[in-house]
Amino acid sequence: MKIDGNHYHTIWLDPNTQKVKIIDQTLLPFQFKIIEMESFEDVVFAIKSMKVRGAPLIGATAAYGMYYAAMENDNLPFLKIKAEELKQARPTAVNLSWAVNRILKKISNQNKNCKEIILEECEKICSEDIAISENIGLNGLKIIEQIYNQKNLKTVNILTHCNAGWLATVDWGTATAPIYKAHQKKIPIHVWVDETRPRNQGSSLTSYELNNEQVPNTIIADNTGGLLMQNGKVDLCIVGTDRVSANGDVANKIGTYLKALAAYDNNIPFYVALPSTTIDWNLFSGKEIPIEERSEKELSEITGVDKSGNLQKINIYPEGSKSLNYAFDITPAKYVTGFITEKGICDANTDALRELFSK
Amino acid sequence: MKIDGNHYHTIWLDPNTQKVKIIDQTLLPFQFKIIEMESFEDVVFAIKSMKVRGAPLIGATAAYGMYYAAMENDNLPFLKIKAEELKQARPTAVNLSWAVNRILKKISNQNKNCKEIILEECEKICSEDIAISENIGLNGLKIIEQIYNQKNLKTVNILTHCNAGWLATVDWGTATAPIYKAHQKKIPIHVWVDETRPRNQGSSLTSYELNNEQVPNTIIADNTGGLLMQNGKVDLCIVGTDRVSANGDVANKIGTYLKALAAYDNNIPFYVALPSTTIDWNLFSGKEIPIEERSEKELSEITGVDKSGNLQKINIYPEGSKSLNYAFDITPAKYVTGFITEKGICDANTDALRELFSK
Repeated sequence: MKIDGNHYHTIWLDPNTQKVKIIDQTLLPFQFKIIEMESFEDVVFAIKSMKVRGAPLIGATAAYGMYYAAMENDNLPFLKIKAEELKQARPTAVNLSWAVNRILKKISNQNKNCKEIILEECEKICSEDIAISENIGLNGLKIIEQIYNQKNLKTVNILTHCNAGWLATVDWGTATAPIYKAHQKKIPIHVWVDETRPRNQGSSLTSYELNNEQVPNTIIADNTGGLLMQNGKVDLCIVGTDRVSANGDVANKIGTYLKALAAYDNNIPFYVALPSTTIDWNLFSGKEIPIEERSEKELSEITGVDKSGNLQKINIYPEGSKSLNYAFDITPAKYVTGFITEKGICDANTDALRELFSK
Repeated sequence: MKIDGNHYHTIWLDPNTQKVKIIDQTLLPFQFKIIEMESFEDVVFAIKSMKVRGAPLIGATAAYGMYYAAMENDNLPFLKIKAEELKQARPTAVNLSWAVNRILKKISNQNKNCKEIILEECEKICSEDIAISENIGLNGLKIIEQIYNQKNLKTVNILTHCNAGWLATVDWGTATAPIYKAHQKKIPIHVWVDETRPRNQGSSLTSYELNNEQVPNTIIADNTGGLLMQNGKVDLCIVGTDRVSANGDVANKIGTYLKALAAYDNNIPFYVALPSTTIDWNLFSGKEIPIEERSEKELSEITGVDKSGNLQKINIYPEGSKSLNYAFDITPAKYVTGFITEKGICDANTDALRELFSK
């Protein structure tokens, strides 16, 4: 997708330096800065500090982490230790361990040249991710087209939470892929962008990328979606996810559950877009998904631009106040209308998921 | 209640100047500043710009607005014009027009000395508001005590949204009055304070006043309450309201509806605390309550303290992004466990409300 009219992926190998470049997403929307990761530690830090975020992009970045590990030491026992370190970087997204395990499996019988094999697999993970996202887009497009035609709408109003955009994947996005496909097909779309406190990935990333693709969008406080749904101003919700348990429960950015409840209460379709790698077949229910607790400072400190155009970080809470920062919540499968995947669309239950993915 | 150990009301007549003083709530929690209103226009501006806010306090302030109008011109036709101007200051809270109409009724047969009569009525409105809030506290205390004893809890965890604290009334608050009464009675309480975007009245006002009264509290993003409820970390929700229609639908700060849905989904009692003046018997349902739309800047601009301790206002949204700022939403009566009023507790329906208030 594009930033300032130029095409980018969110992660790529620089052919000159043979090192991996990413967009520092913690600086968006105020600064567009590309950074080159120098070491394995840089990769872990990029994941932990959310310079890269979004389940599919975390997976791709972790894969490249194994490439950096192999640059240090091209030896299997060492790489296995590094793999564990990577998996600990963030607990909720299953794509992280999926990508690392895929690399480990690929090199399980290798005694040498792991680095080249890993790098090849990283490139494959990235190109597959792009293809998967694009297929999610094409499958989700059918839902948007159907709503557009059936309801005879002037504009299809879609609500999304957090950023499951192209910045969360290698390209296209998960929740945004159907939106971009519909926009390309000239279906009139307008997106309600949940601000998504505390880190504001909705306003800082989703609105930013939609602006760059000229998709009409409006930022709303996370509190606002319910009222809009009550008043018929939302035709469809699409969100991403960090992990789906085998029964169809959905872990996604904190607050997703509240929007799913409101959609259910107002008979608005609520879809979750995901690559199959986000399904954790080992977990029977969402209750087993670990919920990451992050720093209080993500709530109390906020960054923006002052009137002179300088970046400022300010504290917005009373002196002495405590806060608590859980990053995800669980939306029970019963509130999910369906899953939009690269393989097709299915209902949110074990049988439907198994049927779709056994094809 | 107290600030820095000193007792205050939120509005009072200074006996020396015969003018009315308020706390500028837009500067909290960073600065505690008392301002003296000089003119009728100052009163309207204080209401519009939310230097005073909260339905009961808006009512008391509007009453004093009539006192300022009478200082200008102690003549009934003039005062009727000013009354209309006051009523337009904010559309959602019914207490505003209730207080102004009460003043108008009091002076309806007067040809002179309106000013003194109005001032007397203002003082009466304020002292009644204090008594009403305290009774709300005593009635709500019964609910907290019951939950504390029945569930055999170590601590009663109460979630609240926005600020229906003493800063929203003349003293005690509505939603917080039961909390303060329970705290005085040494029932162990902990309050989850919804940050309440976009104006953050939860973190800036509720947490601030709870800190000042030494009530344990934790600020959470508005997105977080659902997860806490799913995990058994909320025993009770209490919120305030700006207007209740005769059927029990509740207009309150945007986002209240989402918390009510989550409470309902998790079998957690969801109470609304209010003085009887907040009930609009003329409206059959919440759909008739006007929802105030406020400036986009309340979303995109945020104030806090930089690392040097200076107040800074920063812009947190991408250049060119639009936003939409509705201030209230409607919680349907079916999601409200009950109303806590100065007259007692009742179910959220027309019959129960009428029965309680016909006593």
